[in-house]
Amino acid sequence: MTGTFGFRVQAVDGRARTGVIETPRGAIRTPAFMPVGTAGTVKAMLPESVRATGADILLGNTYHLMLRPGAERIARLGGLHRFMNWDRPILTDSGGFQVMSLAALRKLTEEGVRFASHIDGSRHLLTPERSMEIQRLLGSDIVMCFDECPALPATEGEVAASMRLSMRWAQRSRDAFGDRPGHALFGIMQGGVTPELREESAAALRAIGFDGYAVGGLAVGEGQAAMFGVLDYAPGFLPADKPRYLMGVGKPDDIVGAVERGIDMMDCVLPSRSGRTGQAWTRRGQVNIKNARHQDDPRPLDEHCTCPACRNYSRAYLHHVVRSGEIIASMLLTWHNLHYYQELMAGLREAVAAGRLAGFVADFHAARAEGDIAPL
Amino acid sequence: MTGTFGFRVQAVDGRARTGVIETPRGAIRTPAFMPVGTAGTVKAMLPESVRATGADILLGNTYHLMLRPGAERIARLGGLHRFMNWDRPILTDSGGFQVMSLAALRKLTEEGVRFASHIDGSRHLLTPERSMEIQRLLGSDIVMCFDECPALPATEGEVAASMRLSMRWAQRSRDAFGDRPGHALFGIMQGGVTPELREESAAALRAIGFDGYAVGGLAVGEGQAAMFGVLDYAPGFLPADKPRYLMGVGKPDDIVGAVERGIDMMDCVLPSRSGRTGQAWTRRGQVNIKNARHQDDPRPLDEHCTCPACRNYSRAYLHHVVRSGEIIASMLLTWHNLHYYQELMAGLREAVAAGRLAGFVADFHAARAEGDIAPL
Repeated sequence: MTGTFGFRVQAVDGRARTGVIETPRGAIRTPAFMPVGTAGTVKAMLPESVRATGADILLGNTYHLMLRPGAERIARLGGLHRFMNWDRPILTDSGGFQVMSLAALRKLTEEGVRFASHIDGSRHLLTPERSMEIQRLLGSDIVMCFDECPALPATEGEVAASMRLSMRWAQRSRDAFGDRPGHALFGIMQGGVTPELREESAAALRAIGFDGYAVGGLAVGEGQAAMFGVLDYAPGFLPADKPRYLMGVGKPDDIVGAVERGIDMMDCVLPSRSGRTGQAWTRRGQVNIKNARHQDDPRPLDEHCTCPACRNYSRAYLHHVVRSGEIIASMLLTWHNLHYYQELMAGLREAVAAGRLAGFVADFHAARAEGDIAPL
Repeated sequence: MTGTFGFRVQAVDGRARTGVIETPRGAIRTPAFMPVGTAGTVKAMLPESVRATGADILLGNTYHLMLRPGAERIARLGGLHRFMNWDRPILTDSGGFQVMSLAALRKLTEEGVRFASHIDGSRHLLTPERSMEIQRLLGSDIVMCFDECPALPATEGEVAASMRLSMRWAQRSRDAFGDRPGHALFGIMQGGVTPELREESAAALRAIGFDGYAVGGLAVGEGQAAMFGVLDYAPGFLPADKPRYLMGVGKPDDIVGAVERGIDMMDCVLPSRSGRTGQAWTRRGQVNIKNARHQDDPRPLDEHCTCPACRNYSRAYLHHVVRSGEIIASMLLTWHNLHYYQELMAGLREAVAAGRLAGFVADFHAARAEGDIAPL
């Protein structure tokens, strides 16, 4: 691979931006939504289908992949792209967040986190240096700093101490990452809902210098109002010429609100996870296809949607296969949800480029207020 | 739909034949393997992918569909083809076999079978007339007579009594089916492993007259030798100018042996079910991809196979996703298995057409005797 990593803002509308992240593995149109391929697969989707929805980049989870099948194994097999048959960009998280949410017997020290695997109980140590090594072994295009995110509720003192630890780990991550042309390292801003801590964190990251900056520590249960409260000011602490990534967000209205506030990248398991539980996301809100009112409905989920689920199947069919526990239900609803999310991102990008984001957002909320189509 | 149902034998090699079944929904190349789409889906596959493997026809299960979502509902929604997005031929079984294997509280009388649903305990009555009605509501292209198959072990007297009941039901099925141009009704020969009973059953069916004839009551645990024993003579009792369908068969070597003995159509859940349990079928036999010997193997399942699983993924990846319980494991392995089965059928058709079936069968067994590739 040749080429370098770069970001170009092409248009601005209010605080929102649209642009392109260039990588040796292809361009990422921003604002971008990254489907989550936790364990080397976006669940229930072939990678060519994920690409067909419009995704330019996937997210992989360091925590899951280091435990199974193992980073060294993936490296021997040619890296994560080849392993999972996705030749476009991959961003990997650092493992820090999922160690705290999934692993057992966690012990946090200045060095890193010792923990036991949730799969087989095996013992591991994750440090900034090891996280960088794992993400290098995976062949990640966008590497995330190893950070720590305190569980809520946390006092301001706990949030501050955790943020400062993450900033020391950010420096160690930067040092361990080294110089890898074509690969990017993103810092992660912490600081909870306290503006002074967010500003301190951003200043620390800017002093180190990164290819992009994430807003971390949100989407952890604080609620949309608190999240938007932080996004009203925190992106302004970050360099305008680097991508801003909001981790783990979110529902469609979270995404729209985040883009309005200057976010360029997001990821979330929601569209794929919802697809496996009979939940569909459409322009008109959320549809629980398991509901009996769909069982005789010959209409598609959304008559304007061009995904295979909407082009080829009735609500009655989707209802039937969800109720019957058929794998095709997960396949079709995940495809629909990822398609809807990518359509939403395309709409946001076009609206920002045309300077009509406010109108787009008003239409977005109006369609949702209308609600799902009436039963037949 | 216009057009009629017909069968043309194009070449014969020994007892084996190759030909084409013409239907208004498209041609079925024989010998044909029919993937099973039990509840309106070939599990873990989109119908366009099933077609891409080379399948000309699917099988649907009357028993499952009558219980959920219900035959009248499917009819209101435009029939099974439209419901499941498969516009090519569909054969439906009669429900008889699965009532006996799946339902509870069964009561068999001359009239039919009363039973309780295995899904919700609801009570149902299936008769030859109701089975014909359900298969008509589904829009089936090839309808099977309602029959009864005694559980093994059974005495010759039980087998004879059951066969004669099935023959009376065959007449009632024929009467209830009526005249439906473009749709076919197949009779089902019974009689266990007793040549005289098979001959009596065949004579009864021929006297009624059907568009095709199934060999029933095999693949129910009697073993391959006993099955081949019956297939050595039973197809000869059936008209040479009508398709012969062996129900519920089978493993690749069962299929090859059945084609050698004059069978034109088969169906089995094996390739799709195996695909959901980490079992792959290849030219070189069965591969349990869960086995640890595959975990570092960068080679495809079969380097000569052109299915997506073999073109795009290593054994190591397939091992990983099976072990991790990922849906893509079922998707890829089912695709591979169905692709292999259809390749096998294409090979059999070409061999019969070229008059070189014996050589094809020898090569088939030689490749299997070689066994899977050696570990790295």
